[in-house]
Amino acid sequence: MEQLTDAILHQVITPRPADSHKGNYGRCVLIGGARQYGGAILMAAEACVQAGAGLTTVVTAKENHGPLHTRRPEAMAVDWLDFALTESVIETADVLLIGPGLGDSERVRKLLAFVLQKRQPDQWLVIDGSAITILAEAAGGNLIKLRQLLGFPETVVFTPHQMEWQRLSGIPITQQTSRATKAFTKELGATVIAKSHRTTIFAADGFCARNPHGTPAMATGGTGDTLAGIITAFLAQFPQNGKTIAAAVYLHSLIADDLAESRYVVLPTEISGALPLWMKHFEYD
Amino acid sequence: MEQLTDAILHQVITPRPADSHKGNYGRCVLIGGARQYGGAILMAAEACVQAGAGLTTVVTAKENHGPLHTRRPEAMAVDWLDFALTESVIETADVLLIGPGLGDSERVRKLLAFVLQKRQPDQWLVIDGSAITILAEAAGGNLIKLRQLLGFPETVVFTPHQMEWQRLSGIPITQQTSRATKAFTKELGATVIAKSHRTTIFAADGFCARNPHGTPAMATGGTGDTLAGIITAFLAQFPQNGKTIAAAVYLHSLIADDLAESRYVVLPTEISGALPLWMKHFEYD
Amino acid sequence: MEQLTDAILHQVITPRPADSHKGNYGRCVLIGGARQYGGAILMAAEACVQAGAGLTTVVTAKENHGPLHTRRPEAMAVDWLDFALTESVIETADVLLIGPGLGDSERVRKLLAFVLQKRQPDQWLVIDGSAITILAEAAGGNLIKLRQLLGFPETVVFTPHQMEWQRLSGIPITQQTSRATKAFTKELGATVIAKSHRTTIFAADGFCARNPHGTPAMATGGTGDTLAGIITAFLAQFPQNGKTIAAAVYLHSLIADDLAESRYVVLPTEISGALPLWMKHFEYD
Amino acid sequence: MEQLTDAILHQVITPRPADSHKGNYGRCVLIGGARQYGGAILMAAEACVQAGAGLTTVVTAKENHGPLHTRRPEAMAVDWLDFALTESVIETADVLLIGPGLGDSERVRKLLAFVLQKRQPDQWLVIDGSAITILAEAAGGNLIKLRQLLGFPETVVFTPHQMEWQRLSGIPITQQTSRATKAFTKELGATVIAKSHRTTIFAADGFCARNPHGTPAMATGGTGDTLAGIITAFLAQFPQNGKTIAAAVYLHSLIADDLAESRYVVLPTEISGALPLWMKHFEYD
Repeated sequence: MEQLTDAILHQVITPRPADSHKGNYGRCVLIGGARQYGGAILMAAEACVQAGAGLTTVVTAKENHGPLHTRRPEAMAVDWLDFALTESVIETADVLLIGPGLGDSERVRKLLAFVLQKRQPDQWLVIDGSAITILAEAAGGNLIKLRQLLGFPETVVFTPHQMEWQRLSGIPITQQTSRATKAFTKELGATVIAKSHRTTIFAADGFCARNPHGTPAMATGGTGDTLAGIITAFLAQFPQNGKTIAAAVYLHSLIADDLAESRYVVLPTEISGALPLWMKHFEYD
Repeated sequence: MEQLTDAILHQVITPRPADSHKGNYGRCVLIGGARQYGGAILMAAEACVQAGAGLTTVVTAKENHGPLHTRRPEAMAVDWLDFALTESVIETADVLLIGPGLGDSERVRKLLAFVLQKRQPDQWLVIDGSAITILAEAAGGNLIKLRQLLGFPETVVFTPHQMEWQRLSGIPITQQTSRATKAFTKELGATVIAKSHRTTIFAADGFCARNPHGTPAMATGGTGDTLAGIITAFLAQFPQNGKTIAAAVYLHSLIADDLAESRYVVLPTEISGALPLWMKHFEYD
Repeated sequence: MEQLTDAILHQVITPRPADSHKGNYGRCVLIGGARQYGGAILMAAEACVQAGAGLTTVVTAKENHGPLHTRRPEAMAVDWLDFALTESVIETADVLLIGPGLGDSERVRKLLAFVLQKRQPDQWLVIDGSAITILAEAAGGNLIKLRQLLGFPETVVFTPHQMEWQRLSGIPITQQTSRATKAFTKELGATVIAKSHRTTIFAADGFCARNPHGTPAMATGGTGDTLAGIITAFLAQFPQNGKTIAAAVYLHSLIADDLAESRYVVLPTEISGALPLWMKHFEYD
Repeated sequence: MEQLTDAILHQVITPRPADSHKGNYGRCVLIGGARQYGGAILMAAEACVQAGAGLTTVVTAKENHGPLHTRRPEAMAVDWLDFALTESVIETADVLLIGPGLGDSERVRKLLAFVLQKRQPDQWLVIDGSAITILAEAAGGNLIKLRQLLGFPETVVFTPHQMEWQRLSGIPITQQTSRATKAFTKELGATVIAKSHRTTIFAADGFCARNPHGTPAMATGGTGDTLAGIITAFLAQFPQNGKTIAAAVYLHSLIADDLAESRYVVLPTEISGALPLWMKHFEYD
């Protein structure tokens, strides 16, 4: 298993062409944020904006719109009860993220089903948090059904922590070896970010790597939401492949490790705030 | 075509007379921010406040008032459903801006028509974003009708990107040469900020110039809203002419270029935050 | 007319006794913030909190509570439609401020009348903004009636700009000499902060002084609201006299002058943010 | 009486194991924030998040959810009118805090009674602010009844100021000697943080110490709410005993003393913001 190094960032984060505009950096649509978990989708959104997505639209409970615009006016907001508007922004999306703070309700399950049903093969989809669990339950341990639900697994990215991965893959946490996860991922045909102390990336295109970074200072709710937002933004502006996804994972924890040099606790929003400077640092190889 | 330099800022940004007050720096009224796009009008408003407007009032959906006051309590807020109050703030405005996050609805079209109808010749009007498209459709490609709709074109500023300019002028993007845009602008009699990789200003008073600055790091939704807010504030406090408008365009991208030295992504709100320091820098020539 | 110097700050801002608590630094109640002008009362409140008031309660439209708590959770909020609660917080207040963003409506007039009626002689009252105009109209140019309305003029502070002072005193702006203002203030028996290019303080206890500071960089809506909040906090924690009020005026513009060294525009909220550091600087003489 | 020193921080704040996650740092549930006092629970929550709690859920009036998510999206929010959801988050909590901005109403009394009734012996409970007064009244000066109400006093922490301590213990402020407070605390069997100029900790496990830090610059509403949040987070991640509680008290005032070197006023939220850096400083002994 390859170990990621700074080289992955130099490869992925390339200088932007001078004559480019926001349309070149992707339309991202982020879906999540049930009332109780509104902060999760806010954190995903600000990670997405600060990681360089051209246009970020958040489909979420109306209660979250004010906080979203207050924290990051650069993002747009759609009420997730407004089905027609939700449909139209999903249709024109380049990259979709569903999961941060999504919760689990009948409506949310319908929304996830709708996204899966409408999604075109070239629209990448990041599936995070409770969306993984909902999907695992829907598939009921049947891999063929899971692949059918995904439609085009090769443009899906899962970001499970260990328990979520157990639910999705059926592999118990204690048996989640690289070999086992890699084998299941290959069958699944999607990209999997297996989050743990040392997160491992198993990409649908065959790229596999272990992330050497990460710190227990990140052990605060919201860290995963932030990572999901960064992956979304990276897929929106860089080549859509395993290396790009791995670069997002690597950068997230590299920044955290740096902040943890001086902080006992690294808040997820601090990582997002540091993205523009760090991305610049690695722009030239 | 003249290329803008720092000299334009030295000329326009002059020291304020000691014995002056907020009334001397203009009443700006900013109209926009449909629910989905609430952040756009927030970004225009904070650019306007931080660029030195004396009084900034935002006419927008009520949902945006809380976020506006939270981000910039210096701005005032009017519910755009309150027609009487909207009318009264428009009447006493020195400079008007319509467009950021305006969206396109029957109500919004009426609001735009109302602004155009009530506007006095000495009230400058900046027309941005979807307001340009609405107006282009209303004119139906008829220049005389467009001039009639504007009423007093010489105190109007358009800030179209290339597609919006195509809609307004009828000139296809591929044929938007300086010569073609200048010719149409002259017929129109208004000022046009033709936004592109190298934005060009064609002012109603004959001043034309190309902006050498700008960076793809600005390719995030909200950059145009911020520019519109700066133009509005500049027209509210400096001589109302092409040079002042050009100075606003130049400063916006000069700050972005500077921030982009250390940032892969330059968020629009960061540009606004830097305005007071940069304006001071150029105050003395 | 004495010119204020740093000495006034050294005299007024004294070290706090070690064994003191928030009750020693005053209960301030700030009343204002009609919907359109919600930002004004937010700015007064954060100036009050950051200038060291022990407890700050804001009586304002409910729409402003969220933005208030978001910007400064240290402040408490009372819905100004809740008459009983408003009455109870007014009764226990040490210092009252009415005016920032108050607007002018029947309800607001009643609220002002209620404050004037309920106020005890030792509850200082700062009257700012539209509250001055409302009171001027209520008095109808009759000084005796004005004094009656105030109840205890000697614990009232007015903070009029020139037009408001004309309305209250009947002295036309062009005739607002120090002599004329001083004479009227003496008759009135209250303290007057006559705001202009060089603000002058005429205190009820005879202290008169001119403020040499102030900059046109402050010419943004909200500057007066911020000043009113600082005066309120100073009256809540320092000896309640003309020197203390003058110190508040002096400090507000001293900070602005310093910020204006590097800023073309000094936002009111920046002044508030700098208060704790500046007050420390002058704590020791 | 032992005097606390930096040593308590070195002992308590230990390096986090590399292979740990947010579940290892506790589920904290904070209850409070009636409308008028919404800021209090926000301040407790951000102290809790920034002091390193793994997961922070705030049970509060719905009006406070937007401001909470705006200030700290890392926290989750539960409407305190939603009894079922409140019950479920309480059940899975590791540490509970009730009191900041709680106010006093029939509903709030029921909520407190419910928390006390449902609480398991290993769920630590911090009782702050008006919750102390409500409990004092419910016990009516009867120590046995008070112990019964608490259920498991040994996992309860009270944070009374002097008047609240008088209400709870029956000891008049003038007679609140260390000896008297210690004696009552021993009978009570709970931990008491007796807040005053020099706060003293009397822990249920016998640990007693006086805090040498603290400054009158902290004399602003919200300081106690912040302390309560830090205690909660410390109990969620460090050994649950008197030393850990004392370390929280010590750190809170140590940071304030440091900030007060350069500030006349130290806002509670500034203390919270400084927590991650200070905790890192003391991580290694």
